[in-house]
Amino acid sequence: MSQTLRIAMAQTDFHVGALDRNLATIRDLIATARDVHKADLLLLPEMALCGYVSEDLYGRPGYLRRCEQAVQELAAEVSGISVVIGWPETAGSVVYNAASLLRDGRVEATYRKRFLPNYTVFDEARYFAVDPDGGDCVFDVNGVKVGLIICEDIWYAEPLASTVQAGAELVLVPNASPFERDKHAQRDRLLATRVAESGAGIAYLNVVGGQDGLVFDGSSVLADGDGTVHTAAESFADALLVADFDAGTRKFTQVQWPEETDESAVSLMWRAIVRGTRDYCLKNGFKKVWLGLSGGIDSSLVLVAAAEALGPENVTAVRMPSRYTADLSNDLAQEQCDRLGVSLMTLPVELPFQGFLDTLAPVFEGHAVDTTEENLQSRIRGALLMALSNKMGGLVLTTGNKSEYAVGYCTIYGDMCGGYAVIKDVYKTEVFELARWLNARAGAPVIPVGVIERPPSAELRENQKDQDSLPPYDVLDAILQRHLEQQQDADEIIAAGFQAETVQRVLHLVRISEWKRQQAAPGPKVSHRAFGRERRYPITNGYR
Amino acid sequence: MSQTLRIAMAQTDFHVGALDRNLATIRDLIATARDVHKADLLLLPEMALCGYVSEDLYGRPGYLRRCEQAVQELAAEVSGISVVIGWPETAGSVVYNAASLLRDGRVEATYRKRFLPNYTVFDEARYFAVDPDGGDCVFDVNGVKVGLIICEDIWYAEPLASTVQAGAELVLVPNASPFERDKHAQRDRLLATRVAESGAGIAYLNVVGGQDGLVFDGSSVLADGDGTVHTAAESFADALLVADFDAGTRKFTQVQWPEETDESAVSLMWRAIVRGTRDYCLKNGFKKVWLGLSGGIDSSLVLVAAAEALGPENVTAVRMPSRYTADLSNDLAQEQCDRLGVSLMTLPVELPFQGFLDTLAPVFEGHAVDTTEENLQSRIRGALLMALSNKMGGLVLTTGNKSEYAVGYCTIYGDMCGGYAVIKDVYKTEVFELARWLNARAGAPVIPVGVIERPPSAELRENQKDQDSLPPYDVLDAILQRHLEQQQDADEIIAAGFQAETVQRVLHLVRISEWKRQQAAPGPKVSHRAFGRERRYPITNGYR
Repeated sequence: MSQTLRIAMAQTDFHVGALDRNLATIRDLIATARDVHKADLLLLPEMALCGYVSEDLYGRPGYLRRCEQAVQELAAEVSGISVVIGWPETAGSVVYNAASLLRDGRVEATYRKRFLPNYTVFDEARYFAVDPDGGDCVFDVNGVKVGLIICEDIWYAEPLASTVQAGAELVLVPNASPFERDKHAQRDRLLATRVAESGAGIAYLNVVGGQDGLVFDGSSVLADGDGTVHTAAESFADALLVADFDAGTRKFTQVQWPEETDESAVSLMWRAIVRGTRDYCLKNGFKKVWLGLSGGIDSSLVLVAAAEALGPENVTAVRMPSRYTADLSNDLAQEQCDRLGVSLMTLPVELPFQGFLDTLAPVFEGHAVDTTEENLQSRIRGALLMALSNKMGGLVLTTGNKSEYAVGYCTIYGDMCGGYAVIKDVYKTEVFELARWLNARAGAPVIPVGVIERPPSAELRENQKDQDSLPPYDVLDAILQRHLEQQQDADEIIAAGFQAETVQRVLHLVRISEWKRQQAAPGPKVSHRAFGRERRYPITNGYR
Repeated sequence: MSQTLRIAMAQTDFHVGALDRNLATIRDLIATARDVHKADLLLLPEMALCGYVSEDLYGRPGYLRRCEQAVQELAAEVSGISVVIGWPETAGSVVYNAASLLRDGRVEATYRKRFLPNYTVFDEARYFAVDPDGGDCVFDVNGVKVGLIICEDIWYAEPLASTVQAGAELVLVPNASPFERDKHAQRDRLLATRVAESGAGIAYLNVVGGQDGLVFDGSSVLADGDGTVHTAAESFADALLVADFDAGTRKFTQVQWPEETDESAVSLMWRAIVRGTRDYCLKNGFKKVWLGLSGGIDSSLVLVAAAEALGPENVTAVRMPSRYTADLSNDLAQEQCDRLGVSLMTLPVELPFQGFLDTLAPVFEGHAVDTTEENLQSRIRGALLMALSNKMGGLVLTTGNKSEYAVGYCTIYGDMCGGYAVIKDVYKTEVFELARWLNARAGAPVIPVGVIERPPSAELRENQKDQDSLPPYDVLDAILQRHLEQQQDADEIIAAGFQAETVQRVLHLVRISEWKRQQAAPGPKVSHRAFGRERRYPITNGYR
């Protein structure tokens, strides 16, 4: 009779830097896996001990010592189960992205990651070394040969191949892989290839939770040795996953496995936004949030996200009408807050606006009214929201979308004020897509229909419409996606059929707005290439 | 008779992304080196073609193609001189940090950098590959064997050793090495070691100029084969340096070499600040700047820097008194502007401040006055400066120092408003040091003595002093330097003799201010570890 092994996989949120908290979480997981689920093996994610990614904390000797102590402490406690944990292992002057097998009171084996991603959001070559003598890590659990590699390693053929060559029947792959649109299908194709190549089963575990500009989606998955990829675990949800692996058939049987039921891009994107917002707020000690609600679609969408993330009772919307605000805007804001059960406050910008105009009048005499006055209104709104946050506590959420950040159609120190930019990686066309999807999902206009149907406007001057200053959003977003996500220059975009003048203008706007983006709040990455740490551009940039 | 070679070295500012501009600069340099100075060889810095560092532009295929075309175009023109130029060389799917010898109408040889820095401000592993088959690059110029390595390579023994082994009598080292305090001595010690090890002469060329948060200092230097390191070229100055190298003696004779005359830390730091400010403004199209002048030492110092960088006629100081501003502050601002010939404008914050208070009164009723009202005044000042910039053009300079940014003693969207943060990497104790040095240099109080002698205050409430909220600045800065520059944790700093409670409080403030710093404007790096791209910390950070 062939050997079987019960594996528990912790699709769990480990907080960056919070070593004591993570240790307590891990102790609970070990007890539950061993005592409740009778698991032989508990797999924890990449860098579970200290959270992914600790960034320059890895450069602090004191931090690394604490991690080392914590692993030794944990190892000493382990009995009756094998535990695999990711952590930063210091050896002399270098640090490895490591995962260790803790068993029978000691650190029995350690694997060091062979491929360190150092592109897009990843800076692993900054923090970690590759061990030139590092080899495979294969150990016996309950008569089953178990191998171990880490995250990026699975994207190359060699680490898995050599691990299987060394005898592994089941290969563990702990990950810290941030969410982006359309990544799952690619991942599943890869796993199918790898199991088909190797014949080994793969247990692919991904961490879950928001960390600044990244959201880890979990979506952990099992792949049988015959090439079958099972349904992923529920995305963005914490879960202790349990499955049995049969070393004879090289197949998994799910024991406790909440399955993902909607892998549509819009659903995943929405949950990334909500989870990212919730985790940013709560991990940073904010139970309550403020946001400016204009009656436009962006803030309307952010309001729904905030209410879902933190509960409507923890959200206060602030309506800040100016002399240019339509009655419709005020009405739509009220309508939405009533429906969602969010409290709404009204603070007109008129008094400080007049104060600014009067103060500046001697200097501005003879100058025409221009965007200066528009920006002033936006900055008053930012200052009002920040004043509410300063006086009452709670975080200010920012409501700009990716199309606006891209072309600078936003006011720095104005509507860009805030601690978390909820939809900064969502194109305007996706904002509409999400709004319609949310209403369909709710079977009710959680985003008022009037908000979706009115033409977008910043309402900072008389009869202003976004489309007076910008190309239609479907055109704008198509150009932006080629430029930002596919790295195309103007000539390539024009060759694809877009109007030359429009393309040149959009790319010019992207370039001259870089300084604003570098002063922007973080927000959850959902696209292939997000602003922030992922897209590092010079402000001073002479490339045309 | 031994062979000699005349080398010209372009300690020149090459603008990031500005390929056409850089090409024109290079053509001029070639003509001058060949025709005026009769040089045999022109050495251009690392990445001279496209500027250092082009960041994610290196990921744009169109950008890389343009670089390739430009090098080929340039090579075709070269005659009568050997030219060595740094550029990003694409080969298949990878890019190398390369330097090529252009001679007789073609690219004759190319060297690929062997060590890619990927720490502190450097992300070279993100952009470039190491060629596993890459070897030495040695060529003959006028009978002299010349070798070539790039920047980081010189910090390791092997590249120079193997280049000399391959026959090099003179080794060229083009660099893009950003300024930081106390780096020159370290560099000179290294060069002395390397020439002593190898017996070859070294021509070390560093680029010059400001690029966002970095300032390259030039300070190029020659080292004879007998271990002598010559006096460096003038720091922060553009210069075409010319020297003769004698292959027999392995010694250099300077032909045109403006020498650095003041390598004191304070002088170099000041020139870094001025050059960084000038280049940021001018490269981004701003001839004029605005700044808020409070009568305190930080803005007073920034005013002198701005006047030196751009000329006093291009600087407008704005005094924005509140109900809490001392008459002395207004008088000192006036005194300094009169002395420097800078125009001064006065915009009281009272009207918009009252407008905000009246608007917020219904909400704030029953709440005590606190930092909210202080922040409002600061945000009004930020909005006024931005309004001036929006209406009249010109860049807003930010005046906060490193100690303030470290502990969050600054108002986001308030005094942090602006495009360039001139002294953000200068500790408060260094601000005083610079002020005294400037007055000594000028033989006149360019910083009014009253500004230096009064106790620092934000003047945002009655009788406020910085030292009410913060430890004395000498203590604060000593703690910050240990924590930020030497990566020490609290226990190490306390063990060094600092009061435990103070240390804990300072480190707590540093941690909770990270979100503000991530929304800060760039400013010139002068310290060992600057905020911004160099110090990458999570906002969401549970490490205590």
